[in-house]
Amino acid sequence: MSKTKKIVVIGGGTGSFTVLSGLKKYPVGISAVVSMTDSGGSNRIIRDELGFLPTSDIRQCFVALAEDGKEQSLRKLFIYRFSRGNGLNGMTFGNLFLAALSDIFGSQIEAIEKTEQLLKIKGKILPVTLTDSNLVAVYENGKKVVGEHLIDEPKHNGNLKINKVFLKPKAKMYHEVKNAILKADLVVIGPGDLYTSIIAGLLTEGMAGVLKKTKAKIAYVMNLMTRYGQTSGFRAKDHIQVLEKYLGENCLDYVLINTKSVPGSALVKYKRMKEFPVVDDLKDSYFKIIRGNFLSGKETKRVPGDILKRSLIRHDSDKLARVLFKLCKQ
Amino acid sequence: MSKTKKIVVIGGGTGSFTVLSGLKKYPVGISAVVSMTDSGGSNRIIRDELGFLPTSDIRQCFVALAEDGKEQSLRKLFIYRFSRGNGLNGMTFGNLFLAALSDIFGSQIEAIEKTEQLLKIKGKILPVTLTDSNLVAVYENGKKVVGEHLIDEPKHNGNLKINKVFLKPKAKMYHEVKNAILKADLVVIGPGDLYTSIIAGLLTEGMAGVLKKTKAKIAYVMNLMTRYGQTSGFRAKDHIQVLEKYLGENCLDYVLINTKSVPGSALVKYKRMKEFPVVDDLKDSYFKIIRGNFLSGKETKRVPGDILKRSLIRHDSDKLARVLFKLCKQ
Repeated sequence: MSKTKKIVVIGGGTGSFTVLSGLKKYPVGISAVVSMTDSGGSNRIIRDELGFLPTSDIRQCFVALAEDGKEQSLRKLFIYRFSRGNGLNGMTFGNLFLAALSDIFGSQIEAIEKTEQLLKIKGKILPVTLTDSNLVAVYENGKKVVGEHLIDEPKHNGNLKINKVFLKPKAKMYHEVKNAILKADLVVIGPGDLYTSIIAGLLTEGMAGVLKKTKAKIAYVMNLMTRYGQTSGFRAKDHIQVLEKYLGENCLDYVLINTKSVPGSALVKYKRMKEFPVVDDLKDSYFKIIRGNFLSGKETKRVPGDILKRSLIRHDSDKLARVLFKLCKQ
Repeated sequence: MSKTKKIVVIGGGTGSFTVLSGLKKYPVGISAVVSMTDSGGSNRIIRDELGFLPTSDIRQCFVALAEDGKEQSLRKLFIYRFSRGNGLNGMTFGNLFLAALSDIFGSQIEAIEKTEQLLKIKGKILPVTLTDSNLVAVYENGKKVVGEHLIDEPKHNGNLKINKVFLKPKAKMYHEVKNAILKADLVVIGPGDLYTSIIAGLLTEGMAGVLKKTKAKIAYVMNLMTRYGQTSGFRAKDHIQVLEKYLGENCLDYVLINTKSVPGSALVKYKRMKEFPVVDDLKDSYFKIIRGNFLSGKETKRVPGDILKRSLIRHDSDKLARVLFKLCKQ
């Protein structure tokens, strides 16, 4: 019998949720490495008032990896968001759950491990860092913005290009992340907001080196749409160039890119948000391009608990997982 | 094989916690009937801001009846109280848990049932009523106070005698409570704060009638200490007379009363709170008096989540349960 293959998924947010939901159906060992710079909404309270690291993205990974079936009640609880109560309104239950367990067991890492047991999740969830750090963006006009939520939902002109992002203070990689990547057969980066979900995690000190060192193949899943405030006007190659800027040249083995057209009804809605399909301008390169229909057939509805937040279309988790599972066996 | 005996415990708070913790070790069917007029602290938010019935006493019953062992993390979570965060400070996690599940499943009753399953508790927890009602006390000087927490922690002279209590609005008995009492072999009332934990539940419409109608034996566990604001100066017989006032004559089959002296160190602390041991002035009557050492050997420490709140001494759950188990088989 061959050894179980190991896959590390790097990111956070909707994109990772989609990849993890698909992969959990396969006989692979999954580690979800989660960016830790989220600073909006529920996370602001978690960070500023309770003094913890942000947990919204971790919470979403729990839901993605939770067993279906008898743990449904706990899953529903995890995505529940209080919609009234002076101090509670907007808080997600999953975040409160993790905060309480962190106090009880003395660390967020222990809280995450206990929750893995309670929800009987398939795989491990690893914060990319335990350092309390913020994402800082410097724009083409010299403007500097501190805090992921202000980059994600800019108060300035969102067509401004980001020249550089960095973490303040520098964030140390959580040692289990290093172990997981070094032992992996495949590392999946994205899909997800390029700066706030992907680069935010890749900026962790040592990450570029570990990704170079590992024997795992590295696959990047290209976003379907541009993102106002982060990747306005970006084509596929622009995404790759940003990754290369932070990870170094030849950092990828595979790039998965969708070929299926986005439905007109969704295009109209995205256009209102100044967002457009990512144009495939990829040419043969050092990485292998895997083109295919990776689009989910259904338009996404808003789901309580914002697991699928603002995206109207998304990748199809099963289509992605099928290809990724093949890659991890090569 | 004889049928499993059924015990109903009526009350709420520390007293019920003690009785339930002991009884769960015996092969009996347990129903915990919980008073629903608590209005202080975390419950105020649950009631006023979230629009639910109060759940602190229910939460305590869950902890009392939860399986030991592998559900320990969930138990710890249930008694956890947030100690920081603007809107969270003072909220107990168990209350938030029940509130979220109530929203998810559409009713508090369903939330309680789901929690019974998740915590794998031994027995059923039944709110005495689903009516949103408050306890009102009228004192010997004519003063009227609305709200359990203002009766429990009076802002007036706590030596004032309560002349009468009633519920406003009247509370309808939850139908499962009626079923449980009618099918029971033993009903245990108390120990617990006479007005705010015990009478508050017994005032529910129909309760006196159902307790008359049931073939179950009815046992009252006499409090160890008087309670400033509720039973100042009360001897044992005064407690019985209050019960008779609300339940009618001949309402009890057994009265359990402790004979062991309260340690001097505890007496000193209680005296500061104007509270004293309940003097045993019981004489032969229509009920059987069961005297014994029911005192817990250890002085109670304050426990996070206030399960044992303010009591320094308490009944020994094992000693009580041993006697109660015998009674239910008679």
